[in-house]
Amino acid sequence: MENITQIADVMSFTVIAAGLLIGLGALGTAIGFALLGGKFLEGSARQPELTGMLQTKMFIVAGLLDAIPIIGVAIALLLIFANPFIGQLGG
Amino acid sequence: MENITQIADVMSFTVIAAGLLIGLGALGTAIGFALLGGKFLEGSARQPELTGMLQTKMFIVAGLLDAIPIIGVAIALLLIFANPFIGQLGG
Amino acid sequence: MENITQIADVMSFTVIAAGLLIGLGALGTAIGFALLGGKFLEGSARQPELTGMLQTKMFIVAGLLDAIPIIGVAIALLLIFANPFIGQLGG
Amino acid sequence: MENITQIADVMSFTVIAAGLLIGLGALGTAIGFALLGGKFLEGSARQPELTGMLQTKMFIVAGLLDAIPIIGVAIALLLIFANPFIGQLGG
Amino acid sequence: MENITQIADVMSFTVIAAGLLIGLGALGTAIGFALLGGKFLEGSARQPELTGMLQTKMFIVAGLLDAIPIIGVAIALLLIFANPFIGQLGG
Amino acid sequence: MENITQIADVMSFTVIAAGLLIGLGALGTAIGFALLGGKFLEGSARQPELTGMLQTKMFIVAGLLDAIPIIGVAIALLLIFANPFIGQLGG
Amino acid sequence: MENITQIADVMSFTVIAAGLLIGLGALGTAIGFALLGGKFLEGSARQPELTGMLQTKMFIVAGLLDAIPIIGVAIALLLIFANPFIGQLGG
Amino acid sequence: MENITQIADVMSFTVIAAGLLIGLGALGTAIGFALLGGKFLEGSARQPELTGMLQTKMFIVAGLLDAIPIIGVAIALLLIFANPFIGQLGG
Amino acid sequence: MENITQIADVMSFTVIAAGLLIGLGALGTAIGFALLGGKFLEGSARQPELTGMLQTKMFIVAGLLDAIPIIGVAIALLLIFANPFIGQLGG
Amino acid sequence: MENITQIADVMSFTVIAAGLLIGLGALGTAIGFALLGGKFLEGSARQPELTGMLQTKMFIVAGLLDAIPIIGVAIALLLIFANPFIGQLGG
Amino acid sequence: MENITQIADVMSFTVIAAGLLIGLGALGTAIGFALLGGKFLEGSARQPELTGMLQTKMFIVAGLLDAIPIIGVAIALLLIFANPFIGQLGG
Amino acid sequence: MENITQIADVMSFTVIAAGLLIGLGALGTAIGFALLGGKFLEGSARQPELTGMLQTKMFIVAGLLDAIPIIGVAIALLLIFANPFIGQLGG
Amino acid sequence: MENITQIADVMSFTVIAAGLLIGLGALGTAIGFALLGGKFLEGSARQPELTGMLQTKMFIVAGLLDAIPIIGVAIALLLIFANPFIGQLGG
Amino acid sequence: MENITQIADVMSFTVIAAGLLIGLGALGTAIGFALLGGKFLEGSARQPELTGMLQTKMFIVAGLLDAIPIIGVAIALLLIFANPFIGQLGG
Repeated sequence: MENITQIADVMSFTVIAAGLLIGLGALGTAIGFALLGGKFLEGSARQPELTGMLQTKMFIVAGLLDAIPIIGVAIALLLIFANPFIGQLGG
Repeated sequence: MENITQIADVMSFTVIAAGLLIGLGALGTAIGFALLGGKFLEGSARQPELTGMLQTKMFIVAGLLDAIPIIGVAIALLLIFANPFIGQLGG
Repeated sequence: MENITQIADVMSFTVIAAGLLIGLGALGTAIGFALLGGKFLEGSARQPELTGMLQTKMFIVAGLLDAIPIIGVAIALLLIFANPFIGQLGG
Repeated sequence: MENITQIADVMSFTVIAAGLLIGLGALGTAIGFALLGGKFLEGSARQPELTGMLQTKMFIVAGLLDAIPIIGVAIALLLIFANPFIGQLGG
Repeated sequence: MENITQIADVMSFTVIAAGLLIGLGALGTAIGFALLGGKFLEGSARQPELTGMLQTKMFIVAGLLDAIPIIGVAIALLLIFANPFIGQLGG
Repeated sequence: MENITQIADVMSFTVIAAGLLIGLGALGTAIGFALLGGKFLEGSARQPELTGMLQTKMFIVAGLLDAIPIIGVAIALLLIFANPFIGQLGG
Repeated sequence: MENITQIADVMSFTVIAAGLLIGLGALGTAIGFALLGGKFLEGSARQPELTGMLQTKMFIVAGLLDAIPIIGVAIALLLIFANPFIGQLGG
Repeated sequence: MENITQIADVMSFTVIAAGLLIGLGALGTAIGFALLGGKFLEGSARQPELTGMLQTKMFIVAGLLDAIPIIGVAIALLLIFANPFIGQLGG
Repeated sequence: MENITQIADVMSFTVIAAGLLIGLGALGTAIGFALLGGKFLEGSARQPELTGMLQTKMFIVAGLLDAIPIIGVAIALLLIFANPFIGQLGG
Repeated sequence: MENITQIADVMSFTVIAAGLLIGLGALGTAIGFALLGGKFLEGSARQPELTGMLQTKMFIVAGLLDAIPIIGVAIALLLIFANPFIGQLGG
Repeated sequence: MENITQIADVMSFTVIAAGLLIGLGALGTAIGFALLGGKFLEGSARQPELTGMLQTKMFIVAGLLDAIPIIGVAIALLLIFANPFIGQLGG
Repeated sequence: MENITQIADVMSFTVIAAGLLIGLGALGTAIGFALLGGKFLEGSARQPELTGMLQTKMFIVAGLLDAIPIIGVAIALLLIFANPFIGQLGG
Repeated sequence: MENITQIADVMSFTVIAAGLLIGLGALGTAIGFALLGGKFLEGSARQPELTGMLQTKMFIVAGLLDAIPIIGVAIALLLIFANPFIGQLGG
Repeated sequence: MENITQIADVMSFTVIAAGLLIGLGALGTAIGFALLGGKFLEGSARQPELTGMLQTKMFIVAGLLDAIPIIGVAIALLLIFANPFIGQLGG
């Protein structure tokens, strides 16, 4: 394999970027779902007859909440398993 | 491929920039939707008859909330798959 | 292409600057719309007959809120696709 | 073009400065308008008959709020498209 | 094994990235579950007859809360035990 | 032009200083006017008959609030268009 | 042992990563259990007849809360005692 | 001009120091006047007959509040237009 | 002893990692037990007849709270007294 | 002038130190007087007959509040115009 | 003494690690005991007849609170007076 | 003067240390007196007949509050005008 | 004295470590005693007949609060006056 | 004087350490006495007949609060005027 030093540089930065992408997403979703789920449990405890409806609504919000972090996970996986830059460099 | 060191430099910075673009967006949307969704669940639990209307409104706000982060995702993907700078450098 | 090292330097800084421009804007708008939209949902849940008027008002505020971040996105795109400095350097 | 290394240095710093100028402004206006608009929506929901007057007032405040960030955007554009330093260096 | 210095560089960055991935996830989930579980215990203490239902709901939220951090753990393990980059470099 | 490297150094630091001057001012005024304007809208909504007087007062405060940031903008422009140091260095 | 410098580099980074993994986890669980346990003691003091049920529930939450940090401990131990990278480097 | 490198160094640090002096002052006064002016508007809205007296008092406080930042502006201007160090170095 | 420079490097990083492991744990447990113990004293002062039961419960929570920090202490001691890496390097 | 490089070094550090001295003081006094003046306006609005006495008291506090920052300004001016170190170095 | 440079390196890092170990512990325990002791004084002032019991309980919590910081002190002393690494290096 | 480089180094660090000593003290006293003076004005406004006594008490507290910052100022002046280290180095 | 450079390195780090040890402890105890003493004064003002008992209790807490910072001071003095490392290095 | 470079290094670090020691202490005591004195003024304003007793108590707390920062000042003075390390190095 030629250009070995350049490829290793890009790989090292890619690994750190993947850690950043998923780490920040994990921190955000963990705290986000804690806040959202707390409101959901509070609402369910106060009006048990609305639990089903509230849960449906929470899943809708959860879908929105998870969207960008999941994209971040997907891009991190793409960068790890099918990094287009490493192919371009002849890796 | 000529200019290999310069191209690898731009690639390394691009990967970090993509991590920054999506990581900050993921953190922001996760916490943002948690706050917004909490208000939505609270409102729905207090006035179940307004849930439909509130959900429509929340989607409108969600569209605004997600706009810039989604643009960030798009630009990150563009930088990864069709980076104009690397083409200019002959990559 | 001449001046290759200088051009690559400007490109690397441009990518980081684009990440900064859109990343900070995404973080700001995500949290900003969450706060604004929360107030909007609260107001709508309390006075459903005013929802239409409140939504119009919220869009006006949203326009103001989004103005500078959208300009940041536009400038980031301009720096990526039509960077005047790289042309000046002969890139 | 002579003095190529010096010019590229000034260009790189200019791009970062533009990112700083607009990025900080976008963060500030996004959070600022969220706080201001939240108060506006609250006031409108509580006293719908005053909405017109409050909106006029909010625009006045918005003009003040946006003044310095818009100047920052203008200076960032000036630095990108008509940078006086690069002309002085013979760029 | 050839390219030993490059491989060791990628390995060092991988270990730090794994620490970042799991460390940030652990911090987030620990605080997140504390907030969520506190709401759950409060609800159970106030309405003991709803404990079963609330626990089911909490597990649903817990699944969402844990999703991204668990993905982070999985990717960290993958990077440690089956790092695709090290194979590509001939490690 | 002689002393080209020294002049370019001063120029690079000047651009960053301008970004700092206006960026910090923009962040401060955006949040400051949001807090001040929120109080103004609250007061107007509660006592509409005092709106005129309150607005006059707010403009007086706005003048004080904007004073130092506007001076910062002026000095940033001066540093960009008529930098005395670059003239002294023979630029 | 060959490749001694590379192996020592990976070892040094591994030790710091282990400190990060367990240190962040310890900080998170210490504060997390304080918040969770405080709610548990409050609930028990207010309704002593529910203490048994609340304790069972708290253990379920504790299991979730501890999951990722314990995984972090396990991975730190694995990196210290059976580091796959050092074996690959011939250590 | 002799000692050109030393003079340029002092100039570069002077520009950054001016940015620090006015930038921090602008941030402080913007937030300070927002807090002070908010109290003033609140007081005026609650007791309109005291507005004149309160405004006089606010100006006295404003004079104190602005004193050190204005001195900072003056020193920044002095450092830019009549820097004693550059004269001492023969600039 | 051979490989002295590499061994000393690993030792230096080990000492810093031990400081990080125990320092963060000490900070976390000190603040955690203060919060938990404050709730315990409050509960005991309000219902003295429940003190025995609350103390038992607090010890259970304390066991969970201390678990990860104690593991951190143990690993720090292991790294200091029986560092497997230093043995592998021939120390 | 002899020892030109050493003198220029001390000058550069002196300028930064002056920026630190006055910048931190300006930030502190701006926020400090905002808090103090807010209490003063509140007190005056509630008991207008005590305004004179309160103002006298506020000036006493203002003297104490301003003491150290004014000393900081004086020392910054002394360092700029009559720096004893530069004289000692033969500047 | 042989290996003097390596030993001095380990010593320097050890001193910083000791400062970190005890400094963080001191900060944590000082704030922790202030919070805990404040609750204890409050409880004693409200129910003086329970002071003895509360003090016993506070000592139990204090023992838990101090445990990890005291271990940190012990390890710092061990690293200073009987550093096993320096013996291994032949110090 | 001999040892000119070493003396200039100590001077540069001394200037920064003086900036730190007085800058941090100025920040602390400005905010401290704002909090203390706010309480004093509040107390005086509520019980005007106690103003004299409260003012005496405030001066006692002010003496304690100012003690360490004034010592910091004194030591900064001593370091600037009669630095014992520079004499020892033959300055 | 032999090994002068190594000894001076250890001395420099020791001085910084002493500053860290006592500086962090001073910050912690100052804020800690302010919180604790505030509770004590509040309790004494509300129930003057309990002052003696509360003061005794506060001294007990103060002993615990001061323990680790005083140990930090002792270790800092030991490092300054009887540094075991410097003796080992032949200082 | 021999070993001039090593002595100057230790002196430079000593000056920074003194700035750290007194600067942090000044910040802590300024804020600490503001909090403590605020409680004292509040208590005196509410129960003027207890002022003497409260002041005595406040001085006791002040003695505890000032203890570690005063030790920090003493050690800073000792390091400046009778630095044992500089004597050991032959300064």
